[in-house]
Amino acid sequence: MSADAALAALIASVPDFVPGSVWLAGAGPGDPRFLTAEAIAGLVRADVVVHDALVSDGVLALAGPQAVLEFAGKRGGKPSAAQDDISARLVVLAREGKRVLRLKGGDPFVFGRGGEEAVVLAREAIPYRVLPGLTAGLVALSSASIPATMRGTNQALVLANGHGGAGPDGLDWAALAATGQPIVLYMAMATLREIAGALQAGGLAPTTPAAVIASAGTPQERAVFSTLANVSRDTTLAGILPPAIVVIGHIVSLRGRLLPPLDVEPSR
Amino acid sequence: MSADAALAALIASVPDFVPGSVWLAGAGPGDPRFLTAEAIAGLVRADVVVHDALVSDGVLALAGPQAVLEFAGKRGGKPSAAQDDISARLVVLAREGKRVLRLKGGDPFVFGRGGEEAVVLAREAIPYRVLPGLTAGLVALSSASIPATMRGTNQALVLANGHGGAGPDGLDWAALAATGQPIVLYMAMATLREIAGALQAGGLAPTTPAAVIASAGTPQERAVFSTLANVSRDTTLAGILPPAIVVIGHIVSLRGRLLPPLDVEPSR
Repeated sequence: MSADAALAALIASVPDFVPGSVWLAGAGPGDPRFLTAEAIAGLVRADVVVHDALVSDGVLALAGPQAVLEFAGKRGGKPSAAQDDISARLVVLAREGKRVLRLKGGDPFVFGRGGEEAVVLAREAIPYRVLPGLTAGLVALSSASIPATMRGTNQALVLANGHGGAGPDGLDWAALAATGQPIVLYMAMATLREIAGALQAGGLAPTTPAAVIASAGTPQERAVFSTLANVSRDTTLAGILPPAIVVIGHIVSLRGRLLPPLDVEPSR
Repeated sequence: MSADAALAALIASVPDFVPGSVWLAGAGPGDPRFLTAEAIAGLVRADVVVHDALVSDGVLALAGPQAVLEFAGKRGGKPSAAQDDISARLVVLAREGKRVLRLKGGDPFVFGRGGEEAVVLAREAIPYRVLPGLTAGLVALSSASIPATMRGTNQALVLANGHGGAGPDGLDWAALAATGQPIVLYMAMATLREIAGALQAGGLAPTTPAAVIASAGTPQERAVFSTLANVSRDTTLAGILPPAIVVIGHIVSLRGRLLPPLDVEPSR
């Protein structure tokens, strides 16, 4: 079978996109090369694509000519109202008989609030499927040549929401520190200083390696390599802006073993 | 643009697969619909595909007609030797000028030992790229209608290797239990009883919801829903065989809120 025929067969093998249903799909962290085959099938077949700000233009360009693109980014200062509005909008579109692709950056179930939308769809008896996508935390590590796991270094990985910082809405950072396992932080750019402080207060050494990776897997990727004590300052000095992923733990120092020596030609 | 043309353009946009280089790629958990566009490009272009037992026939069917398929599953009882053999084989194939696709189930960097292969490739100055894939733990949750994260329930997720059990090679389960966050276990089918015991000894309630999901996202998917106290017994009684994913935590009980009522027609 030719490549084109194999690909067409693969896309055709994805289950029917039934009118009046919602596909709650992850687009991965930006570059369309991270899309899954079933997310591509969703883009090709959807009547309407309801997408976040984190879904890139390159991804949206794959939508079929019949598709209406609808932006559903969060409104500043009113996150809860906007989330309810988005869920309600999905219900309305599905009841109009549309094939609704709800497309989110990353994975809809990993800090993506896809679970909340799924609850509404289930409650309203709207047929839906969930299509996993590559989550930003894991792609950022990979793109920065940091293995998520390595025998002899770690046996677990913690994916954590930094949004609540070290306040009452935040995680028990001391408990996470006590596991001795690496921590991958999402949405932590505004809270990085206090989280880094809480992890040190919880027993993590100030010298623990840390990295911040922005725009992972795109030509705009930027990474800062530092330590737990200095990562907040170094990120600010480097001018790194959200969204970005932070990783704290000894896996960060394995990066040097994954990169080829600088005097080696990258191709032959 | 037509769907076929959009897809062909996307595949063509993936960077060149340079002869003499290795792409260390994740195939996701089995079904080819979980493949990323760049993994598909790798399959279409590779001269040789060195694959694990966890990579499905449906995925391998996408390899181009020029591709030689080479099985590199682990040999029973000699895991370390086999890993060294695989890394050495990748070096040999690359030095022969082949386009080498090293294809692993899931994500190469998440309990996939891809980091070890990357270290060897870097040391031997073989050009390589890492292509993330959907990791089995997150797909299993999604497929079983369990959100990985939900506001008000959890703010972090622990991905953990169960292979070492509760022995000296295992994790500090009491420390993980103390985080209060859900735990997703890989490779824990042989050790589930002792890990469940260690988590309870560490303070997790015996009634904590737990699920085991095998063959996630395939027609053979099977899931068992239980509690931390009973999950090992219930998994054995159900005849679930490895590989399977175990998830322990209150997110498991959210499943009921994500499933539509049974009296609702699945399509319209």
